[in-house]
Amino acid sequence: MSIILGPHQYGKAENRIVRIYRDSPRHEIHDVNVSTALRGDFDAAHLRGDQGTVLPTDTQKQTAYSYAKEKGLLSIESYGLELARHFVDDVEPVSGARIEIEEFAWERVLVDGSEHDFTFVRKGQEIRTAAITVEGSGDAQREWVIGGFKDLVILKTTGSEFHGFLEDEYTLLQPTTDRIMATSLVAQWRFTTTDVDWEATYAGIKQIMVSTFATVHSLALQQTLYEMGKAVLEAYPFIAEIRMSAPNKHHFLYDLAPFGLTNDNEVFNADDRPYGLIQASVLRDDAPDAGPAWTIAGGFA
Amino acid sequence: MSIILGPHQYGKAENRIVRIYRDSPRHEIHDVNVSTALRGDFDAAHLRGDQGTVLPTDTQKQTAYSYAKEKGLLSIESYGLELARHFVDDVEPVSGARIEIEEFAWERVLVDGSEHDFTFVRKGQEIRTAAITVEGSGDAQREWVIGGFKDLVILKTTGSEFHGFLEDEYTLLQPTTDRIMATSLVAQWRFTTTDVDWEATYAGIKQIMVSTFATVHSLALQQTLYEMGKAVLEAYPFIAEIRMSAPNKHHFLYDLAPFGLTNDNEVFNADDRPYGLIQASVLRDDAPDAGPAWTIAGGFA
Amino acid sequence: MSIILGPHQYGKAENRIVRIYRDSPRHEIHDVNVSTALRGDFDAAHLRGDQGTVLPTDTQKQTAYSYAKEKGLLSIESYGLELARHFVDDVEPVSGARIEIEEFAWERVLVDGSEHDFTFVRKGQEIRTAAITVEGSGDAQREWVIGGFKDLVILKTTGSEFHGFLEDEYTLLQPTTDRIMATSLVAQWRFTTTDVDWEATYAGIKQIMVSTFATVHSLALQQTLYEMGKAVLEAYPFIAEIRMSAPNKHHFLYDLAPFGLTNDNEVFNADDRPYGLIQASVLRDDAPDAGPAWTIAGGFA
Amino acid sequence: MSIILGPHQYGKAENRIVRIYRDSPRHEIHDVNVSTALRGDFDAAHLRGDQGTVLPTDTQKQTAYSYAKEKGLLSIESYGLELARHFVDDVEPVSGARIEIEEFAWERVLVDGSEHDFTFVRKGQEIRTAAITVEGSGDAQREWVIGGFKDLVILKTTGSEFHGFLEDEYTLLQPTTDRIMATSLVAQWRFTTTDVDWEATYAGIKQIMVSTFATVHSLALQQTLYEMGKAVLEAYPFIAEIRMSAPNKHHFLYDLAPFGLTNDNEVFNADDRPYGLIQASVLRDDAPDAGPAWTIAGGFA
Repeated sequence: MSIILGPHQYGKAENRIVRIYRDSPRHEIHDVNVSTALRGDFDAAHLRGDQGTVLPTDTQKQTAYSYAKEKGLLSIESYGLELARHFVDDVEPVSGARIEIEEFAWERVLVDGSEHDFTFVRKGQEIRTAAITVEGSGDAQREWVIGGFKDLVILKTTGSEFHGFLEDEYTLLQPTTDRIMATSLVAQWRFTTTDVDWEATYAGIKQIMVSTFATVHSLALQQTLYEMGKAVLEAYPFIAEIRMSAPNKHHFLYDLAPFGLTNDNEVFNADDRPYGLIQASVLRDDAPDAGPAWTIAGGFA
Repeated sequence: MSIILGPHQYGKAENRIVRIYRDSPRHEIHDVNVSTALRGDFDAAHLRGDQGTVLPTDTQKQTAYSYAKEKGLLSIESYGLELARHFVDDVEPVSGARIEIEEFAWERVLVDGSEHDFTFVRKGQEIRTAAITVEGSGDAQREWVIGGFKDLVILKTTGSEFHGFLEDEYTLLQPTTDRIMATSLVAQWRFTTTDVDWEATYAGIKQIMVSTFATVHSLALQQTLYEMGKAVLEAYPFIAEIRMSAPNKHHFLYDLAPFGLTNDNEVFNADDRPYGLIQASVLRDDAPDAGPAWTIAGGFA
Repeated sequence: MSIILGPHQYGKAENRIVRIYRDSPRHEIHDVNVSTALRGDFDAAHLRGDQGTVLPTDTQKQTAYSYAKEKGLLSIESYGLELARHFVDDVEPVSGARIEIEEFAWERVLVDGSEHDFTFVRKGQEIRTAAITVEGSGDAQREWVIGGFKDLVILKTTGSEFHGFLEDEYTLLQPTTDRIMATSLVAQWRFTTTDVDWEATYAGIKQIMVSTFATVHSLALQQTLYEMGKAVLEAYPFIAEIRMSAPNKHHFLYDLAPFGLTNDNEVFNADDRPYGLIQASVLRDDAPDAGPAWTIAGGFA
Repeated sequence: MSIILGPHQYGKAENRIVRIYRDSPRHEIHDVNVSTALRGDFDAAHLRGDQGTVLPTDTQKQTAYSYAKEKGLLSIESYGLELARHFVDDVEPVSGARIEIEEFAWERVLVDGSEHDFTFVRKGQEIRTAAITVEGSGDAQREWVIGGFKDLVILKTTGSEFHGFLEDEYTLLQPTTDRIMATSLVAQWRFTTTDVDWEATYAGIKQIMVSTFATVHSLALQQTLYEMGKAVLEAYPFIAEIRMSAPNKHHFLYDLAPFGLTNDNEVFNADDRPYGLIQASVLRDDAPDAGPAWTIAGGFA
């Protein structure tokens, strides 16, 4: 029986890159948070402190900033692919690269009703995400692209029920036929190709998910999530799978009876913790192999 | 020489009240975080643990929730005034009340291009704030209302210079005639009346500040802030004073020269800390007495 | 080609349970954050909104609080095992349960040099963690226990080098033979048995890791992590594997030369972002199957 | 009626300076977060964008780092005084300076039972604070020093009652004679001299406050705070005043009766929001003028 080195990876996390396009008077802004991680033959660094095969995390940072200019940063998915391919193709000891990116949206300020050319307010809604994995070289090279968002806080004031659930000796919850349903949604979808209009697809998926949340009369958050995911897969044949994580942000009806008042679903307490947490995925039954696509942070999250 | 009790106050902080108006199929939502604080003759509680004059913080909470129904919650300024007056008028030992409120904005989801009746996405931009102080009883009663916002993240990609500054032996900074200027703005304005269209005024002030930020060619963040405040006071005669706190969120031009690239204000590092912090106020020279209006959290912040 | 429901789980996250033992005048406190997740046959809830097999997340919460009294909460690993077994054994549709727990340590206040019986200050250092997975019923039931901690912020002011690394055209980093090395360590270790003195083992592992960090002369954070993990496995035969995630919290030597000063590793800037991120595992080559032990948050993290 | 510039200040916030003393093999570490703010004649910058009297915030940063070496950083109060005096004395347009500092404590790692020379774990308990204000020049110069801490999380499992309180029509709270009392204490004390052993005084004040919290049988958090403050002033004649802000971190007894269990103050829910917030001060009736000592962040907090 012996003790050995197991899976490992290393990189530079949270490079806060802002890329401005100023080729015309109407500037564009791309504001991202980029994390790189490399996998490969770095055993000597662990076992003996020998850095001979280790490209410094500082170098990974320099590359990420430089690529924002060299290759451009128009879509996080395509930028991430460029960066991942570079590390795998150009740095000999690297057999796999994982690039995780967050993007913060900005919207143009209005001046006298017109969009300003170079002034922006941070939009502040959901954060767009991408996770790109590239492995292998030459013909054996494979790529996986995950798109997504997090922190999309969405709420409906009615159109949500919850009843008929399983009960045991610890069950005190009362059924309801009208409640607030709210969540801070995380969604991630897996592409089966890289030949994608990334911007249009992102906007389309978000719109489908949001409008499905609105229009499905909900008997459970589970049901709503499934319908949201199904609608995305029906609309986009090149999406193999979608995963969602949805905290049930409880809004408890406040008891105003002691004060002689009727509370007809008007006054709620927005509770912090605990919260329900529903996690679900929807996929095609012929979806190709996910490989390491979902291996978030190398399994070390 | 003796040791005595000094200034004190107590209350219930961060009541997370959500008020839904559902009188028509098109629901409205008001999502707030309310903190109450009472001042008055509570010396016995401090000196001897005698609670005879202390209205529990739990009671303050119950009142805040009940008032969202009893008095309504359409504008945070008017709701805060109702709550503050109640504590001062109806609870005998209370001589002053301070209500601080944050409001989180939501926007309607679009379904097939139309606004949905009861589904919302959290807007996620600036948080609107109010601080209401009421002191005294009967004819001697006085009221102060502060409106405001925080966390308005605004950025311009050009139109900002910084040069001609004072230098000493620790000065290394290079002057610039073109930089990104960005801040996460806090603004608070003091009303001289309570006869105000609170909603229209809030929207108007925000629009003035944002468009002034965009259109003033800036030689310093100080100058931009002053112009923003002045524009608000010129537009609203019932605003006596505006205070702004503006972190200078540095975006440093990334050095790409080692990689043979020219960085023509295209790639920046968005730095976290440290940050410049500019704080300034603009006021009318005949502004009425601010009294305790600005005494944030009783001076214990 | 059809669209189907994929992996899913649901539960109640972040139950903030405080358990006081007061059987003697010297009270004990256990302060935890418990998240439950159930896996099983909940397809009908997703596909049709039918809750017939769904034990509400509120019931999971009630159970978690009740078990703190019924079964006790002395070690998070044993408490988590009780809770996970209950859901799998006693709730028919549940085939698997995952319990994730954080524990916040408190230490006794000193009064006249002696530990007080019932007054505590939150220790504020690392947060202890556990993740328990139970699957299957009867003889086929299997259990996996992960212990660990996060947020252990540790630093050495010397005894750390970094040089001899791989260089490419983006490499600007200079080698160093003396630097600050600091991290905020996350560590998780997998047990091969549940017949463990959980408290003694936790204290022992932490002490081994901390003292190894101190005494290993470091040529790379990778090397230090490997030595820390190896030392744990050598000391505890019932630990199969340890995983570590270590942000390299950069402390950059501040350039004081412009002010005529020599900075002999005395003044540093503690940078926020970006940071290196080293993730590594050490394991026995005959370690038993990890199964779902590491499937953090059902793969939805 | 005209619109004028009101109070203003500017500076560099959150300089994360780490100062190592390595004159002997046993290194010492001081880990601080320093914010500077200057007041004076900067009107031209606001009114016309003229920076002629404005020492850049970058220069303030350089000075803060350089002073950690030039003047040393042994106590945050003395370091802050050096920095404030420099700005007021040496930078002509500056009439007042405010330095606010946070200090993060580290403790030595134990190796084989002995304290290690150069490896530390972040202590993680309260954050020590200081706020230094210097105004005026020559004989008219005045200095104010505030010491303090924040985030000291302290809890007692018994020895706390709450009853006999004022009731109105919104009062639902039940009285109790045995509850958990917990807070995350902020305390700030004002010195009347700068001839102080800053380290010993800090340790002494903290010990007095913590042990008083433990030993006072509490009828209200107000009473406990007053006794804590009084004890500090009795012990330190050069402390004029102490201010405390104490969230009442509610631990609600969990109702286990539905499960046939008696909860004899054993199982609690640690609630997040809302929380009671008690703010109080204790002072000497002959305390000298506080001047701008308490004007946190120039009144713009």
